[in-house]
Amino acid sequence: MAVRNIKLTISYDGSTYHGWQTQRGKRTIQEELNKAIGSLIGWKVTVHGASRTDAGVSALGQVAIVQIDSPIPTQNLAKAINDRLPAEIAVTEAVEVPNNSDVIAAAKSKLYRYTIFTGRLRPVLKMKHCWHRPAKLDISAMAKAAAMLVGKKDFKSFATAADKRQDSVRTIFRCEVTQDGNWVYVDVEGDGFLYNMVRNLVGTLVEVGRGRWKPEKMQEILEARDRTAAGPIAPPAGLCLMWIKY
Amino acid sequence: MAVRNIKLTISYDGSTYHGWQTQRGKRTIQEELNKAIGSLIGWKVTVHGASRTDAGVSALGQVAIVQIDSPIPTQNLAKAINDRLPAEIAVTEAVEVPNNSDVIAAAKSKLYRYTIFTGRLRPVLKMKHCWHRPAKLDISAMAKAAAMLVGKKDFKSFATAADKRQDSVRTIFRCEVTQDGNWVYVDVEGDGFLYNMVRNLVGTLVEVGRGRWKPEKMQEILEARDRTAAGPIAPPAGLCLMWIKY
Repeated sequence: MAVRNIKLTISYDGSTYHGWQTQRGKRTIQEELNKAIGSLIGWKVTVHGASRTDAGVSALGQVAIVQIDSPIPTQNLAKAINDRLPAEIAVTEAVEVPNNSDVIAAAKSKLYRYTIFTGRLRPVLKMKHCWHRPAKLDISAMAKAAAMLVGKKDFKSFATAADKRQDSVRTIFRCEVTQDGNWVYVDVEGDGFLYNMVRNLVGTLVEVGRGRWKPEKMQEILEARDRTAAGPIAPPAGLCLMWIKY
Repeated sequence: MAVRNIKLTISYDGSTYHGWQTQRGKRTIQEELNKAIGSLIGWKVTVHGASRTDAGVSALGQVAIVQIDSPIPTQNLAKAINDRLPAEIAVTEAVEVPNNSDVIAAAKSKLYRYTIFTGRLRPVLKMKHCWHRPAKLDISAMAKAAAMLVGKKDFKSFATAADKRQDSVRTIFRCEVTQDGNWVYVDVEGDGFLYNMVRNLVGTLVEVGRGRWKPEKMQEILEARDRTAAGPIAPPAGLCLMWIKY
């Protein structure tokens, strides 16, 4: 029986989890997947995710890889794993990939969506999946500021200090702000993101939207290469990893 | 300072609560409201709800009444209470009503919506607010059965045994089954409901939808006046109290 490399696409409601990554004594998405797949195939396994989402962050299209040594046909894997997962986590696809696949380094593009609710009254059924910020936002100013983030740039000002990676240059393909009634969406597509980068970008765009800063301030913040130049971090509940492309 | 009778309209995500009604040592919606209003006005109060929703059931338009003895203007009450409530509960309106208002007995009509998801993959972000039942349902058969429930009838077959009320006659004004892709909605409007009545109706309609029973079976079930004649109870997560009219 040959070891197979399985690429999983995963959706989850992260609101009651301590993020993706396994941490001793904490409930995490990675650990639930390790347990579910381990119990299915009878071996201890480790699932490796393409994005380490934070506590409270959700996903509709996380991608992960796992090596399994089991006779279960690939087409039956997703259902069999889902039967062992909690209701908040689901494998939406499982496919076999060549041995050398590296789901982390090979990702070409990721899309994150951040959701803000600007109505006065909190939307009780959606509070785990949005930032309730009950005040008008200037969407066109935010869109203008967002457009200034597109391109290959140094995003050091938007990386939380805990990010130890030397290279803070990333490419943002798209950064759009749209509105549907009281709901505001920030869609950010890029080739990769620094630690807390999307939440820091959103927190900064909100400073523009509420009129504290002009859209042009974005250029100044980028050039500062200093986290303290940007706005506050947006809360995790509003963030969702939509998809990863290879 | 005169005691005022305040009618509250309330929305809540009931997924992490033990229902509306106060129970010792349990987290309930009524108790959270009692605490929030009590801390606001400095007196212990008891909020009386028009519907006792079960554990896991949500509401967008619950109605409750509370007597307060406080100088806070009525128009400021909702916001002041909301500032003291957990994120899952919100007062959407607070108005003064005459002393003799009885929000429980005076309700003319209530609408409950029950949500079913019939897709194969579970909708992870909405699992707390639907019944995931991954199989096709015959919507037109369900709609036909639902129509047979409309009118002034004895609904004893749909009351969980714990309901001790003598009179099991209620009037259903409307019972509609609609579909939007994989989402199926059962809307039930009536002048009042027996214990677990909507969930028992939905569980029975699903038996029709999956082909176990013909729509005409509804008449037989009603006539039996026996809970065991009807289908199984639908889970609480799918149920939401939409509004109450006076």
